[in-house]
Amino acid sequence: LKHNKDYQPLSGRVMPRFAAIKSFFRLPILEVARLGESVWDEKFDIALVGVPFDGGTSYRPGARLAPTRVREVSSLGRSYHWESKTSVFEKINAADLGDIACPPVNLDQSYTAIETFIKNGLKKSKRILSCGGDHSVTLPILRAHRAHFKKPLAFIHFDAHLDTYPAAWGNEYHHGSFVRHAIEEKLIDPKRTLQIGIRGPLASQDDLDFVTKHKMTVITIDHPTYLSFDVDALDPAYAPGTGTPVIGGLTSYEAQRILRSLKIKNLVGGDVVEVNPAFDHGDITSLFAVDVLFEMLRMMTK
Amino acid sequence: LKHNKDYQPLSGRVMPRFAAIKSFFRLPILEVARLGESVWDEKFDIALVGVPFDGGTSYRPGARLAPTRVREVSSLGRSYHWESKTSVFEKINAADLGDIACPPVNLDQSYTAIETFIKNGLKKSKRILSCGGDHSVTLPILRAHRAHFKKPLAFIHFDAHLDTYPAAWGNEYHHGSFVRHAIEEKLIDPKRTLQIGIRGPLASQDDLDFVTKHKMTVITIDHPTYLSFDVDALDPAYAPGTGTPVIGGLTSYEAQRILRSLKIKNLVGGDVVEVNPAFDHGDITSLFAVDVLFEMLRMMTK
Amino acid sequence: LKHNKDYQPLSGRVMPRFAAIKSFFRLPILEVARLGESVWDEKFDIALVGVPFDGGTSYRPGARLAPTRVREVSSLGRSYHWESKTSVFEKINAADLGDIACPPVNLDQSYTAIETFIKNGLKKSKRILSCGGDHSVTLPILRAHRAHFKKPLAFIHFDAHLDTYPAAWGNEYHHGSFVRHAIEEKLIDPKRTLQIGIRGPLASQDDLDFVTKHKMTVITIDHPTYLSFDVDALDPAYAPGTGTPVIGGLTSYEAQRILRSLKIKNLVGGDVVEVNPAFDHGDITSLFAVDVLFEMLRMMTK
Amino acid sequence: LKHNKDYQPLSGRVMPRFAAIKSFFRLPILEVARLGESVWDEKFDIALVGVPFDGGTSYRPGARLAPTRVREVSSLGRSYHWESKTSVFEKINAADLGDIACPPVNLDQSYTAIETFIKNGLKKSKRILSCGGDHSVTLPILRAHRAHFKKPLAFIHFDAHLDTYPAAWGNEYHHGSFVRHAIEEKLIDPKRTLQIGIRGPLASQDDLDFVTKHKMTVITIDHPTYLSFDVDALDPAYAPGTGTPVIGGLTSYEAQRILRSLKIKNLVGGDVVEVNPAFDHGDITSLFAVDVLFEMLRMMTK
Amino acid sequence: LKHNKDYQPLSGRVMPRFAAIKSFFRLPILEVARLGESVWDEKFDIALVGVPFDGGTSYRPGARLAPTRVREVSSLGRSYHWESKTSVFEKINAADLGDIACPPVNLDQSYTAIETFIKNGLKKSKRILSCGGDHSVTLPILRAHRAHFKKPLAFIHFDAHLDTYPAAWGNEYHHGSFVRHAIEEKLIDPKRTLQIGIRGPLASQDDLDFVTKHKMTVITIDHPTYLSFDVDALDPAYAPGTGTPVIGGLTSYEAQRILRSLKIKNLVGGDVVEVNPAFDHGDITSLFAVDVLFEMLRMMTK
Amino acid sequence: LKHNKDYQPLSGRVMPRFAAIKSFFRLPILEVARLGESVWDEKFDIALVGVPFDGGTSYRPGARLAPTRVREVSSLGRSYHWESKTSVFEKINAADLGDIACPPVNLDQSYTAIETFIKNGLKKSKRILSCGGDHSVTLPILRAHRAHFKKPLAFIHFDAHLDTYPAAWGNEYHHGSFVRHAIEEKLIDPKRTLQIGIRGPLASQDDLDFVTKHKMTVITIDHPTYLSFDVDALDPAYAPGTGTPVIGGLTSYEAQRILRSLKIKNLVGGDVVEVNPAFDHGDITSLFAVDVLFEMLRMMTK
Repeated sequence: LKHNKDYQPLSGRVMPRFAAIKSFFRLPILEVARLGESVWDEKFDIALVGVPFDGGTSYRPGARLAPTRVREVSSLGRSYHWESKTSVFEKINAADLGDIACPPVNLDQSYTAIETFIKNGLKKSKRILSCGGDHSVTLPILRAHRAHFKKPLAFIHFDAHLDTYPAAWGNEYHHGSFVRHAIEEKLIDPKRTLQIGIRGPLASQDDLDFVTKHKMTVITIDHPTYLSFDVDALDPAYAPGTGTPVIGGLTSYEAQRILRSLKIKNLVGGDVVEVNPAFDHGDITSLFAVDVLFEMLRMMTK
Repeated sequence: LKHNKDYQPLSGRVMPRFAAIKSFFRLPILEVARLGESVWDEKFDIALVGVPFDGGTSYRPGARLAPTRVREVSSLGRSYHWESKTSVFEKINAADLGDIACPPVNLDQSYTAIETFIKNGLKKSKRILSCGGDHSVTLPILRAHRAHFKKPLAFIHFDAHLDTYPAAWGNEYHHGSFVRHAIEEKLIDPKRTLQIGIRGPLASQDDLDFVTKHKMTVITIDHPTYLSFDVDALDPAYAPGTGTPVIGGLTSYEAQRILRSLKIKNLVGGDVVEVNPAFDHGDITSLFAVDVLFEMLRMMTK
Repeated sequence: LKHNKDYQPLSGRVMPRFAAIKSFFRLPILEVARLGESVWDEKFDIALVGVPFDGGTSYRPGARLAPTRVREVSSLGRSYHWESKTSVFEKINAADLGDIACPPVNLDQSYTAIETFIKNGLKKSKRILSCGGDHSVTLPILRAHRAHFKKPLAFIHFDAHLDTYPAAWGNEYHHGSFVRHAIEEKLIDPKRTLQIGIRGPLASQDDLDFVTKHKMTVITIDHPTYLSFDVDALDPAYAPGTGTPVIGGLTSYEAQRILRSLKIKNLVGGDVVEVNPAFDHGDITSLFAVDVLFEMLRMMTK
Repeated sequence: LKHNKDYQPLSGRVMPRFAAIKSFFRLPILEVARLGESVWDEKFDIALVGVPFDGGTSYRPGARLAPTRVREVSSLGRSYHWESKTSVFEKINAADLGDIACPPVNLDQSYTAIETFIKNGLKKSKRILSCGGDHSVTLPILRAHRAHFKKPLAFIHFDAHLDTYPAAWGNEYHHGSFVRHAIEEKLIDPKRTLQIGIRGPLASQDDLDFVTKHKMTVITIDHPTYLSFDVDALDPAYAPGTGTPVIGGLTSYEAQRILRSLKIKNLVGGDVVEVNPAFDHGDITSLFAVDVLFEMLRMMTK
Repeated sequence: LKHNKDYQPLSGRVMPRFAAIKSFFRLPILEVARLGESVWDEKFDIALVGVPFDGGTSYRPGARLAPTRVREVSSLGRSYHWESKTSVFEKINAADLGDIACPPVNLDQSYTAIETFIKNGLKKSKRILSCGGDHSVTLPILRAHRAHFKKPLAFIHFDAHLDTYPAAWGNEYHHGSFVRHAIEEKLIDPKRTLQIGIRGPLASQDDLDFVTKHKMTVITIDHPTYLSFDVDALDPAYAPGTGTPVIGGLTSYEAQRILRSLKIKNLVGGDVVEVNPAFDHGDITSLFAVDVLFEMLRMMTK
Repeated sequence: LKHNKDYQPLSGRVMPRFAAIKSFFRLPILEVARLGESVWDEKFDIALVGVPFDGGTSYRPGARLAPTRVREVSSLGRSYHWESKTSVFEKINAADLGDIACPPVNLDQSYTAIETFIKNGLKKSKRILSCGGDHSVTLPILRAHRAHFKKPLAFIHFDAHLDTYPAAWGNEYHHGSFVRHAIEEKLIDPKRTLQIGIRGPLASQDDLDFVTKHKMTVITIDHPTYLSFDVDALDPAYAPGTGTPVIGGLTSYEAQRILRSLKIKNLVGGDVVEVNPAFDHGDITSLFAVDVLFEMLRMMTK
């Protein structure tokens, strides 16, 4: 197996940024779907993967189209992180592992596919950053991490919504219930869980009971930590391309400030979810998703 | 229970067409979800219903948003049918029964909800025209009709795709397999089935075997007939707002000509499916869906 | 007459939020246009009405399309108000009364239709929240309130523009002159008038003379108060879907903060105007309009 | 007064076609609004004028934005007419006279402004091609021509709608009634009137009575003829940017064929109306409008 | 080097079609830019390459964004060709070689890059199908083919424009002059050149002189033939996503019929150019481009 | 030569703002391309010119379409400046001089055309405000100013990017290198250069070396000053219509505050660049560009 120079992004000064086959940050393409499971044995540290599943969406569907668009827009991103003065891709070896095969019509089967894929990577000591998909995909990702690290994770959660909502239309699993399941299944530690940006609509005060009961407010930093970023944490002016927008949200600058102020020592995984290109314009939501991925990559540098 | 003048559309000369709460063709609103099952006892003949389910979509999702948009655009439609010189709504009593509650994350539960809803209407001797949703919804609608009429139906099928495809990603039920199931479950009579507009991509010649074997080509006209119209039978220039467009399709004029030339004596039900407003522009696909509904209403006049 | 459970919104846990015939906040439909004037005798407190008139627009028309879109987007809204910890629809009985029939080509006739409709409701002791339409509709609404309450109203006015502009092209009545007429007709009390967000273009300093002369700055709170929200008070990044956008405006968060800080004890009516769906994207402007309506509903709870 | 070379379009080989201040076909700018009435004394034969009025629209407004967009898109048009082998602008002297000042809130005042403007031009022996605006603008244009030519005109009318509809919401004048008024006021000769593309929705058969009674079918060719082209004569696939689209219409090729087959010897004026840029995409409707103007210019060459 | 099963497209029944890293028709990725020139030694017959250059555009730029979008949309395409009953990818071995590095600001450098890339492939006996880019890219592609085949090529040219236009703004090379250069440089044989769809605007009859002089009308079929398809040969209703649209063009069905009726025995290369995603909607223009590529692939099967 | 009233904008109270041939701020049209070089002798102080060149763009092209769109949107602007209480157009005489003829395919020729055009104006003692085009156009504009003022200029630079990047794909001149050239050619004084909004992606720390070395941070105010505003200094939520957006940018309000706080005594020229209408929505980016032009006009009043 051969690929471009030692896990560096394809240079924009050789190949213009609008050109080339699109991978995350123009990184080497090591696609499991085409090249097989053996790619996990390659010498990279961090896998970027797409999780194009939106079968858990309650309003506007389309997040399945996000990984392709985020890959395209990530071509604009470069390698240097201003605030930390870090040339990120010189400090890590990252690659694009392609998408996980999630049948759009079958949530159970998709959950299994996601959990298996992530476990395969963790087993080979890779860290994995995922690009959803709707927020329901974070549950099987957390299951895989929980199994691998053998204890509940610290969890940082950007969102407009609590995602501790009860079953809807008789269905336990959807994009608004994964936090509740993550706590009930002891995947994350509610005492080490931080929720940022929450302002979403509630049906009644009962919707807050679960949160109150589990006191999800303290965050520690040397614990294995997972970060999940739902782009609807931002105001719709900054992230129109999402399924269940809520006004009054964060600006992109505020989100960037918060991300940079978090002192996480052991980020073991992360995701950005709920980008919906069909309702975006000028790709500004995808552009923000790229920045979240870049901040998480930076956190993963030493 | 009270409603506007004897099942006539709200007049555009009193209330401008862009105004008013939007129902199909501005007909009386007899919404099962709000008013209960007793509305089926009202004195109308034909129910228009929305089936906002797109959980069977294999490419661009969004057809769940169609019934709302088709209702809005149907405000432009009027009552007189040029070719047949018929004032349609003087010959029939039609009403808008609202949408069927289909959980987006659960195909089985949605199928049950659809079949039950349709059966409830048929039991009260109503004829039902449905506005999907993706094409997977036609299967439970046909099941309800088959059970009611106690024999396989004649079936007219406009589509770019055969919809006799095999299971995908291990899933039997999706928007490309309903015709195969309809034949296997003996819901429709392959000898009385007509497919129009077919040109969709095939993986291999094997995809044609099912069709060849069942010889779906002859159509008779006094048999109880169901008509299902997938808007991707049209060329993408005429129907961009759909999930799996195929170039080289019908023009809207050709489709209208074909619909008007079909001499169906006993249209017992019908649907228009696969409108996807997120990819439409200027609502031209919804506008065409309104016309299909109008042609079917006209077929149901005496 | 029958309707859904005691003026509660149709539950999103039974009927998915993208489904059902669209009414404001999924409230019961008591449409005057279809069901007649007798609906005013029903036992609700607050009427939500659409005023789809844009015949007073000076630049980009299309606000006539707003009530339909705002209804659709309000399906995402829920019932619980975070800051005040109020389950709003448990404290009030609200219903959707449909749209007022406004001929688009005739401002005088539309003004009469609006004033009459509002008066009919006030007579039955209802409070009325309107969704425009362009800002010219606020004048006949204020006329109806002034006649009913028999004294000039306190008035809170969110806008980018003063709306005290002189006649344009020889026409007194347009969407930029209603505040001037409201003061000249003594509908509102300039001493109890507050304008927020003003930054619109002026032809010359003369345009400020009317405002200076009437000293419109003080606001009291136990007086009968009317609140009018022109969405162009927001920055175009937050409300692109409007006819005469002005850069440098409020963010949605700031507007929400201001609305929540206003201590209005007797809100007798309100409106949100100048939403123009044809220039919106991802429905973010409609989404904000829904929030304004929700804040006003909350102010009307005890 | 000075202008570019003898009424020739600004060359695309000197100034790129996307550049320059936009006038129809890049012709000289002789704007009445800026330069005064004296421009009518200049030595051109044909005036192109914008009539940005949409106050007669019954559904989607926005046609007021059409003249600006059609000017922009006409930059792509060139000078040579394939079929007739004519270098059009070598045979005629044409100029852009700017827009007519039509108050959007006042139909009467706009009608007067339009009629006066057109009469001023006809008085100076100019022929005038107008770019609407909605179709209500054709009535005052016809009034001016009728007064000038002192007899009813032959009339060619491309449209999806008859435009002989009765008053709407108590209003006689709107974009669906101008043909009726034109006949009642004896502006056009029903025996020399041809309607092409008609297929629009009718409320009932009564809507056809006016047409039947006046027998509007024969067309002669040496009579002073006026041609009015409503772009909704085309199918929405070809002209989505319009206010009241109707499916099943002409293709752009068919319309072009018909225009070229009409043997009109004395075209005294014409218009293209109902372009609505807010609902267009890729400017394809404006592009077609440019072609209609070009065909009419060609008819005016000798 | 490793890749997926013997040059077959990634199966849509294993990996959903919206998922995976996007290559043309989901074929194996053998990207020269990442993997080096040695990929030309792999055992495939036909290379699909992107040529993302739009520096020759005279009106709306953006064709540089086409290869990425066409790759994405080609995911919908399948393997079976209805009319010829051919499973195309069982008869040929095709791969995606990525994009050619074309500096957007430098036409000369881009021409050299394109010619070199194509020559490298031809030298290894590959046939190459290109996806532009604006039409100026066809010139260096033809230069490479001419050098390789050592005689002028037969040439089939779909376009709205002749592309024999003279220099513009003092520049010889732009997207409207490549056919003139191709003839002057003896790259193509005017006696074996066929132009289809031509109807574009001309400045004067002089623009036809070049064509008349070279009598470009006869086509033979066993000669090495190159096919160049400018999507503006289609009507803007079918291909809005292009830089210089012209109304009155081919439908997608007509274009498909023509392509299928051409009996070309020795298609040595081809391209599809002038797709401009920024002005497309619902990706219908890209969808058509995919079909052109598929037809050319089918012609290359035995 | 004749034009409207003494360099005043066409009044919006006579001619509605959506009407008339579009010039910047509805100012008199004195187009060099149509009327010749003699217009420079007219009695105005300030020339507004369009520079529709985007041949230096590295990602999304389309800025060539900006001058036309900015002209259209500037129709909404008025004459009074709130903060400074200035009726701007009473204090200055400004006119629209049209666009500079820039061949899109040839950067060198465009640079010459721009430099010559600007010099012609400066020679006649006009001040010139330019509307790009991509940012590469600022270099020839600065060259013309440097030659005229005979010393390096103070320079204020709003941008997301440093624009001191090295050659790309072997090309020295592109939209990311003009500041470097401006310093190397001594067009601007690095000690009097201020950069605002910078946050763009860097390939590595080396990209900062040039800036560090030249210490571009101090700004004085009585020196001849040039102001260049790249709209990507704003956040994509405020300026989506641009070619290389970067998240985390200024809000329109912040930019306006900064512009108003700059105490520049001798603004000799300025530009606004990188507006790309093809990726804008609701014209909000153009709307902001109009405001930048207006602020610079205000700075030029005494």
